[in-house]
Amino acid sequence: MTDTKLDRLKTLLGEVDDLRKASTVLFWDERVMMPPGGAQARAEASGTVGRLAHEKFVSAEIGTLLDELNENDYDYESFEASLIRVTRRDYEKAVRVPPELTGEMRRSSALALSAWGPAKQNSDFKALLPHLERNLELRHRYVECFPKPAETYDVLLDDYEPLMKTAEVREIFDELKRELRPLISEIADAGQVDSSFLHGDFDIDRQREFAFKVVRRFGYTDEEWRLDQTPHPFMSSPGKGDIRLTTNFQPDDLNSIFASMHEFGHGVYEWGVAPELHRTPLGSGVSLGVHESQSRSWENLIGRSRAFWRFFYPDLQQTFPQQLGPIDEEAFYRAVNKVHPSLIRIEADEVTYNMHIILRFELEQELIDRRLEPKDLPQAWNERMNEYLGIDVPDDAHGVLQDMHWAGGSIGYFPTYSLGNVISVQIWERLREDVGDVDEQMERGEFGEIREWLRSHLYVLGRKFTPQETIERVTGSRIDPKPYVRYLREKLAPQPA
Amino acid sequence: MTDTKLDRLKTLLGEVDDLRKASTVLFWDERVMMPPGGAQARAEASGTVGRLAHEKFVSAEIGTLLDELNENDYDYESFEASLIRVTRRDYEKAVRVPPELTGEMRRSSALALSAWGPAKQNSDFKALLPHLERNLELRHRYVECFPKPAETYDVLLDDYEPLMKTAEVREIFDELKRELRPLISEIADAGQVDSSFLHGDFDIDRQREFAFKVVRRFGYTDEEWRLDQTPHPFMSSPGKGDIRLTTNFQPDDLNSIFASMHEFGHGVYEWGVAPELHRTPLGSGVSLGVHESQSRSWENLIGRSRAFWRFFYPDLQQTFPQQLGPIDEEAFYRAVNKVHPSLIRIEADEVTYNMHIILRFELEQELIDRRLEPKDLPQAWNERMNEYLGIDVPDDAHGVLQDMHWAGGSIGYFPTYSLGNVISVQIWERLREDVGDVDEQMERGEFGEIREWLRSHLYVLGRKFTPQETIERVTGSRIDPKPYVRYLREKLAPQPA
Repeated sequence: MTDTKLDRLKTLLGEVDDLRKASTVLFWDERVMMPPGGAQARAEASGTVGRLAHEKFVSAEIGTLLDELNENDYDYESFEASLIRVTRRDYEKAVRVPPELTGEMRRSSALALSAWGPAKQNSDFKALLPHLERNLELRHRYVECFPKPAETYDVLLDDYEPLMKTAEVREIFDELKRELRPLISEIADAGQVDSSFLHGDFDIDRQREFAFKVVRRFGYTDEEWRLDQTPHPFMSSPGKGDIRLTTNFQPDDLNSIFASMHEFGHGVYEWGVAPELHRTPLGSGVSLGVHESQSRSWENLIGRSRAFWRFFYPDLQQTFPQQLGPIDEEAFYRAVNKVHPSLIRIEADEVTYNMHIILRFELEQELIDRRLEPKDLPQAWNERMNEYLGIDVPDDAHGVLQDMHWAGGSIGYFPTYSLGNVISVQIWERLREDVGDVDEQMERGEFGEIREWLRSHLYVLGRKFTPQETIERVTGSRIDPKPYVRYLREKLAPQPA
Repeated sequence: MTDTKLDRLKTLLGEVDDLRKASTVLFWDERVMMPPGGAQARAEASGTVGRLAHEKFVSAEIGTLLDELNENDYDYESFEASLIRVTRRDYEKAVRVPPELTGEMRRSSALALSAWGPAKQNSDFKALLPHLERNLELRHRYVECFPKPAETYDVLLDDYEPLMKTAEVREIFDELKRELRPLISEIADAGQVDSSFLHGDFDIDRQREFAFKVVRRFGYTDEEWRLDQTPHPFMSSPGKGDIRLTTNFQPDDLNSIFASMHEFGHGVYEWGVAPELHRTPLGSGVSLGVHESQSRSWENLIGRSRAFWRFFYPDLQQTFPQQLGPIDEEAFYRAVNKVHPSLIRIEADEVTYNMHIILRFELEQELIDRRLEPKDLPQAWNERMNEYLGIDVPDDAHGVLQDMHWAGGSIGYFPTYSLGNVISVQIWERLREDVGDVDEQMERGEFGEIREWLRSHLYVLGRKFTPQETIERVTGSRIDPKPYVRYLREKLAPQPA
């Protein structure tokens, strides 16, 4: 009987998953392929498919099956136990939120996002303010759907990093702040690295060719992957064996090479999920933090390593002989790893990036706890940028308006970026222990064993376990910033001459 | 109350339409963009979305609303009356077919289609035979879902050309056969036209550029259209303001230029449907025959006319100076209009094309009436090819296996191609009367008034009226092959020297 019920649950969840995959295709197509004239019809189609996926998931029948099924009838590690456990948690969260509120949040976010573009363009915070206030108000109503948490922010964080508590993040980030602020000063005192040659004239077709060479070495195949161009890079996986990356090749810098590696990291995580988890709620990456650990691994731990460029730099030099001919490998390596406080998060280096995140994490808590009024955001932002990175924000476009997250209603998302940095090195250290000659392999342009280690230790797990369980299974310990800080210091601190 | 009910009906139909549009995107993506590895997940997602669209359409609530609503409460020509009328007919057809049978037909077609590729490749009819037999058997069960028709074939034909009867098609096709067979002989007797220069080395990028020039002149804009490359050209419309064409540029001929114009004709019909009909069952072309009339109008009546090439030939010559430099406009015009019996339908000229269709139409009736056994198809095919076109079929790959329609379960589809030819000239004659200087406009590369006439007379109507009503509204008469025969004779019969 239990098996029949489990089969029925799988059938219903498979249908929900099909609709979510359809939504994914609609979204990808909208961003990458759709002629602009199709926007209205697409909004309607996406709305209906998304709503049906939600309705089918919160159906009474799934609720009854979850009541009747017991994960303890199965081994904790089994597919069956995980399916029941994870679905139950997803379900219990989903049914708490009235569809009207979900709809209002979606509409409010859509309106705010369409106001955000022009507001950023005109550096006009006031134009966005009413939308931010509305988004915040709706998040308060959202929080009230759940049992009273230790901290209000816990509820929001849980949507992006399940089961993680604000206090844990705060502890990790406080340690990062303590360690990184002096490191940033030391690096600044050691004098400027020249990275001027990274700005110039880089033919887009050649950049694309080079990016393809890199991701093919990583494991990209035409059989299962795509790489397209969009203004904002993203990864999308509309189904098993179908992984889609986008990047934004620009004629005046090489950032898209790193963005391609970043998105590859997201993609290869989805690619490596165990086949039997597909078409169930277990068939994707376990949290945004763990996802980001993989994008940052492939972008930074691999893509900004000496060993990586030992192999690829001669090719890149040949690809852009005019710009890079006179630049030796070491100078290039130092330039793409230059640490320097700057205004824009997505352009920040590996060290200062975290200060951008910590600033946002702190402001988000103050906002949701009503200790900071939205109207006072720009001032708070600018003060803290000065305090943490020692730089003056010239206008809100280069300050509080730079990211779309808050306009999109995402509060609690930012910390997952730095959590990802932290987790990435914990995993990487374990990988290095197991694989041994990681650098030698990368120097030979070989990434198969690295990818296979990550796949078999992490990617296969999908959402079978909680994020914390997953991290512990892979690394043997809880989230811990020490390896990350050690990595940054070893790689980037000024060496005594 | 009636208005409330009508609003409710529109809401439900809007949701069904959203799901159908989602299906359209999934299908387009699968054919044009999806990495092959995504096939299984896509089949599942498409299956679920398609099934839900069907379930939502045949819902009891829509049935009750249709029972309660009366189209006679509204003016016959009104949106409301049409919506009720057309939806009722769709609904009454849809509820007659048990979902199990629909599922079986879909599975059988999928299996047969995957057998068709290799069967054609190996010219191995026996490999396809059991699938054809199965498809036919399921079509018999399908026919039995409906009230007994005058002829069995009527039921199948109705799915592609609603309300058209086999007897009417037979009458039209008999007249075509009577008129075209002597015309084909006359042309053959007059000697060969040289078209050898149409085969050679035609750079694909230049072909693409030229095709874009043509469709942009026709009305293609980046705001609302796409044109991509696929092995089999098709048109897809995933929503208002989103029209997608594909074509198949090949390096050794110029066929794709004509295929692009053909698909543009399908696309511009969907593009021109009145905005208020979108997101309802009225928001698309009225039948396959009328649709084909538009693809053939833009491909043949426009794209193979002297006036069209008066404008475009100098450009094409400059695009391919080596191949076309020595060829004058008249020689080129005659070559792209060369009439010559050949083996393959999709490569056939404007005259012999219809004989390919008539052959299939006749064989389909014999099959469904059990006068011909599937195993005897190749022989029947080859005999009739010899009788109608005087050519010997070397193997089944170039005979009965050339088209995928029967493997896909589509019986009753073929006649709509020739009906389209017939209808195209009826509409075109009326357009010429109204617009007057059609040729002069085309010679100047102007197609706006032609497109606008077609849009405002035909395209706007969508599915508001029956196909026959639609044709009568536009042309003032029922389907009539005489204008088409006259057109072919005037354009293509050998001129007395």
